[in-house]
Amino acid sequence: MSRIPTTMRAAVLHGPERLVLEERPVPALASHQVLVRIDAVGTCGSDVHYYRHGRIGEFVVDGPLILGHEPAGTVVATGSGSTRHTVGQRVSVEPGTPCATCPECRRGRYNLCPGMVFFATPPVDGVFCEYAAVHEDFAHPVPDTLSDEAAALLEPLSVGVWACRKARVAPGDRVLVTGAGPIGLVAAQTALAFGAAEVLVTDVVPHRLEWVRAFGAAALDVSRSSLADSGYAPDVLLECSGAPAALSEAVRAVVRAGRVVLVGMGGDEVTLPLSRIQNHELEVTGTFRYAHTWPAAIALAASGRVRLDPLVTHRYGLADTELALTAGLRDATAVKSVVLPQR
Amino acid sequence: MSRIPTTMRAAVLHGPERLVLEERPVPALASHQVLVRIDAVGTCGSDVHYYRHGRIGEFVVDGPLILGHEPAGTVVATGSGSTRHTVGQRVSVEPGTPCATCPECRRGRYNLCPGMVFFATPPVDGVFCEYAAVHEDFAHPVPDTLSDEAAALLEPLSVGVWACRKARVAPGDRVLVTGAGPIGLVAAQTALAFGAAEVLVTDVVPHRLEWVRAFGAAALDVSRSSLADSGYAPDVLLECSGAPAALSEAVRAVVRAGRVVLVGMGGDEVTLPLSRIQNHELEVTGTFRYAHTWPAAIALAASGRVRLDPLVTHRYGLADTELALTAGLRDATAVKSVVLPQR
Amino acid sequence: MSRIPTTMRAAVLHGPERLVLEERPVPALASHQVLVRIDAVGTCGSDVHYYRHGRIGEFVVDGPLILGHEPAGTVVATGSGSTRHTVGQRVSVEPGTPCATCPECRRGRYNLCPGMVFFATPPVDGVFCEYAAVHEDFAHPVPDTLSDEAAALLEPLSVGVWACRKARVAPGDRVLVTGAGPIGLVAAQTALAFGAAEVLVTDVVPHRLEWVRAFGAAALDVSRSSLADSGYAPDVLLECSGAPAALSEAVRAVVRAGRVVLVGMGGDEVTLPLSRIQNHELEVTGTFRYAHTWPAAIALAASGRVRLDPLVTHRYGLADTELALTAGLRDATAVKSVVLPQR
Amino acid sequence: MSRIPTTMRAAVLHGPERLVLEERPVPALASHQVLVRIDAVGTCGSDVHYYRHGRIGEFVVDGPLILGHEPAGTVVATGSGSTRHTVGQRVSVEPGTPCATCPECRRGRYNLCPGMVFFATPPVDGVFCEYAAVHEDFAHPVPDTLSDEAAALLEPLSVGVWACRKARVAPGDRVLVTGAGPIGLVAAQTALAFGAAEVLVTDVVPHRLEWVRAFGAAALDVSRSSLADSGYAPDVLLECSGAPAALSEAVRAVVRAGRVVLVGMGGDEVTLPLSRIQNHELEVTGTFRYAHTWPAAIALAASGRVRLDPLVTHRYGLADTELALTAGLRDATAVKSVVLPQR
Repeated sequence: MSRIPTTMRAAVLHGPERLVLEERPVPALASHQVLVRIDAVGTCGSDVHYYRHGRIGEFVVDGPLILGHEPAGTVVATGSGSTRHTVGQRVSVEPGTPCATCPECRRGRYNLCPGMVFFATPPVDGVFCEYAAVHEDFAHPVPDTLSDEAAALLEPLSVGVWACRKARVAPGDRVLVTGAGPIGLVAAQTALAFGAAEVLVTDVVPHRLEWVRAFGAAALDVSRSSLADSGYAPDVLLECSGAPAALSEAVRAVVRAGRVVLVGMGGDEVTLPLSRIQNHELEVTGTFRYAHTWPAAIALAASGRVRLDPLVTHRYGLADTELALTAGLRDATAVKSVVLPQR
Repeated sequence: MSRIPTTMRAAVLHGPERLVLEERPVPALASHQVLVRIDAVGTCGSDVHYYRHGRIGEFVVDGPLILGHEPAGTVVATGSGSTRHTVGQRVSVEPGTPCATCPECRRGRYNLCPGMVFFATPPVDGVFCEYAAVHEDFAHPVPDTLSDEAAALLEPLSVGVWACRKARVAPGDRVLVTGAGPIGLVAAQTALAFGAAEVLVTDVVPHRLEWVRAFGAAALDVSRSSLADSGYAPDVLLECSGAPAALSEAVRAVVRAGRVVLVGMGGDEVTLPLSRIQNHELEVTGTFRYAHTWPAAIALAASGRVRLDPLVTHRYGLADTELALTAGLRDATAVKSVVLPQR
Repeated sequence: MSRIPTTMRAAVLHGPERLVLEERPVPALASHQVLVRIDAVGTCGSDVHYYRHGRIGEFVVDGPLILGHEPAGTVVATGSGSTRHTVGQRVSVEPGTPCATCPECRRGRYNLCPGMVFFATPPVDGVFCEYAAVHEDFAHPVPDTLSDEAAALLEPLSVGVWACRKARVAPGDRVLVTGAGPIGLVAAQTALAFGAAEVLVTDVVPHRLEWVRAFGAAALDVSRSSLADSGYAPDVLLECSGAPAALSEAVRAVVRAGRVVLVGMGGDEVTLPLSRIQNHELEVTGTFRYAHTWPAAIALAASGRVRLDPLVTHRYGLADTELALTAGLRDATAVKSVVLPQR
Repeated sequence: MSRIPTTMRAAVLHGPERLVLEERPVPALASHQVLVRIDAVGTCGSDVHYYRHGRIGEFVVDGPLILGHEPAGTVVATGSGSTRHTVGQRVSVEPGTPCATCPECRRGRYNLCPGMVFFATPPVDGVFCEYAAVHEDFAHPVPDTLSDEAAALLEPLSVGVWACRKARVAPGDRVLVTGAGPIGLVAAQTALAFGAAEVLVTDVVPHRLEWVRAFGAAALDVSRSSLADSGYAPDVLLECSGAPAALSEAVRAVVRAGRVVLVGMGGDEVTLPLSRIQNHELEVTGTFRYAHTWPAAIALAASGRVRLDPLVTHRYGLADTELALTAGLRDATAVKSVVLPQR
């Protein structure tokens, strides 16, 4: 591939709110890796948090770091041992590569691999740049019917798929999603695609609730009327707000033997209604990223059962990555900003 | 309810191919039962088999018997202790009432209840008649958006739901359905509604395969090209043909750790590819009716994710029940015949 | 059975710490019930709590109430429709009878039946008395090798069995049990009987920890050294202390994809380490009584895999029920007090 | 490790019934491998089959091959990157090393890895020799309380553990094991260690049935009385005989919703009672080797819950490997022959 340059542009974080466009070497390929030209990258709340605060909990940015972990692109070169792609293949990139041999990987729970190398998690660089080296197993081919932006948004869709799997969402279920941010909007659609009979999404921001309805779910503005008063009795709660205040009321709504999945990040500790968990034998768990979700996510998006393109409200070139990261701060109606590095 | 008559018309089987329209007493209501005016009844292969041969395996018709076990109707009276319905409620009737206290019922597997009382299974009368007494728990309210005929066809849909549950069909799965009869057509739609990424249905009758495509699944005419040649490698096999010849080839197509559900009836014994079951650790099971399926089936049909109305190709009044049972013999393009007792 | 008297003695609670021995009618038998002569009744922490405080949470004793819900005895008469026992059969009595037809019962989760009739839960009388009427399905025959006292203690053993099932304890697992009271001691033995490779029980009372070791588990005095320092990394946590202080540390010890079952009662709310639940994808649930546990409990006790007799440290006649309920207050080394109504 | 020789003795199969003791190079260590001095190797029916017939189904011995795949030994050297062992560690060796990155491995089902490298499966050499190179993850440390021979027999114990997991054997279950060969004897013990309430083993050889009783299970000589007459109604069937004649009767004994696991090898196809699988909704599956079993197997053997040492009836030096492979042909009372290469 004589056309691949040796350097590329990258948006590098040098400290809180200090993002600099720099020239970096195009990554060299290790065995079984492919080189992906990045065509679209979604911005995520964690990217914004790193950008503003330089850390998320125990993960601290203490050197220059490229953010971005929701990439889609095109394979432009294949490394030694790579056999799964030909050059030109459009791919959605799963942002983490597990070690493959630790006990968690051997068990198939690779998202829990302690040796996971994950884009944009310090000190591993992310993909707000032009090229990335990716293990071939995690560069998932996508059909041409899927746009670059939708291919990038397979990452948040994977969060929704994983949450629905953990919750064992099945046809006939009533599902409650708390929080109508990007993850809540994807989770609600995913629950419907898993066959849920009803999905109710709660939030306090009216225009977000309009999005909910546009995606075919019911919406409840909990600043105006309480969940308890609604009488909604879900089989499954997908907590996507990260707001602990709402959690206890939501858990209390869940029916006997119901499932609660804590998707939204919300600090070190949480208070839960113990007596309800016991008396109703609720199952409570949390999600950490995802595993084995891309094939299902691709099928859901490609068949139109989950619509990702409408979530993209803002688009920027690589030089404007900072604008992408701050779009939500400037524009309350923003849902998802995407960086298009090849623009 | 002063308007309920004391007698009703019923199509009674008096021996192979001897169906007589008779006057029978309207059933009295036991505790917790409701009286349902029958508005539509689907005809099933087992009804046809009893009609023609007077028996199915060990179940022998040795007295007059009313056939029919796929009823929908309207609640016209409620018995003592019944609290779940008001008169006028349209319902889809689950045709079996389990004992509630045997070990299988206590475990929640009520379809396996040895004391099950099931419509049209000798010596229990079925519902090719004008009224039926039904335990309130098994008269499932349906929304007005659902036609009487679709409400009747929730019974075969339940077969499909149960098969997909047994097979753990989930988003991303590839599913193979063998046989494009009514059950296969419903199972294929159900698998898609469970999120299956791809569904392939095999049969040897071209017009049935056109139905398959109309419902959004792929179709393969195995009289023209072999399944093995197709390279299709399903995660799940739903065997709906009852044809043992095709079974072994279909099982051999299933991927490692795949699931095989034997839905079609096919005699006392079956030959299976042992080495493949072992080497691929396939899970094989069969279905016997269904349990806890109506709420999901109602949701799937009411939301349009499964379409039942198009399956009805023939309609008859109660006096023409015999024509309904023999429609498939006269017309190879028949899919589902429905008896409308109130016509 | 001409020998059955018409009245019996019963220890009746008339208010906090007011227990009166009274003459009461021997219960009449409803359909499918058997009359059980009570030979032994275990005392439980909930009995003690009702005795001292007249209530547990929302359950209030507002009339005379017979306590006691861990009975074993002998069938002395069978009611109409009862076919499972002959007079003279020794039985362990499951203290709750579910309705059999609500959605939870139909699903097999009868412990969650909202219509459950449960001994010694206001206003239902318990079994600190000479006779009880019991649905035949819940009077479980026991082999003669099992003592009356062990047959009574199948109730707490059922709590342990249910907890181990919820936790999916399996051979090879490391299990942590917090709290070495009667439930903790039974749960630890049960976990070993489920094949657990290691069981560690924590408490702060030295003589309880000696009991732990006597039952073949490891013991840790967390008043002297911390769980975290022990480095113990369990697959499963069975919380049996009801002490919220210890919970967070215990949960943090659990390995990735581990299971946490909250068995001990501990108030309305609980604080849990959210980040750990998410990052390790822990599954957290609680137990409410038990379902389908007696057959397994009988087998475990009868085969000696769980030893119940050694747990009985104090025995009293019915007239001394008050002493049974207060034994633990007077004697810190008490484990389990049993009332023997026929003495 | 200056003491490791450069060559070793190995028993090499050169064709049916042609086993030659040869000098071979001690294997070189790849990355993450350790060198294990082989102290004991169990002989398995598959070794005997290769020895006598030169093939098993599609696996053909077409060059010189070292048999043996049940090794225990001592780590004598560690390769680059190996960190899990120190020299001198006694280990039980899992005989297959999966690729770690294929879809099956990524899913945690490494026993189904198509790229598995498995001892004594052509063309991969086995361990009837003095040394073997083993990936560190599959050289499982064993406690000193476990003999070399028991450490070798953790391989057949893993077969039993895997079968019991597939069957979901749990406390209270009744289990039927067909066939009292080495695998049946191990499976019966394992089922008891999983908490099974009753285990019945069938065979037609009286002395094998004595072994069954010695291990605490019940025994039935099906040459004298039929299984059906026994009235035994198991929850689980573990088929360990490989005899298709007995299979149908055994499957018909299984209760509703029971599980059937086909462990014994038995040819390409099998006839099963379809109507029973459907009417009772039996789950049928097969096992292919095992995955993630060694830790549980070590715990079960080390705690004495499964006894492996008594199974060893014959011992041979490496020069007498042929005698080990033919012991069962000469001595009908042989259970398990072990080769001790260091003798």
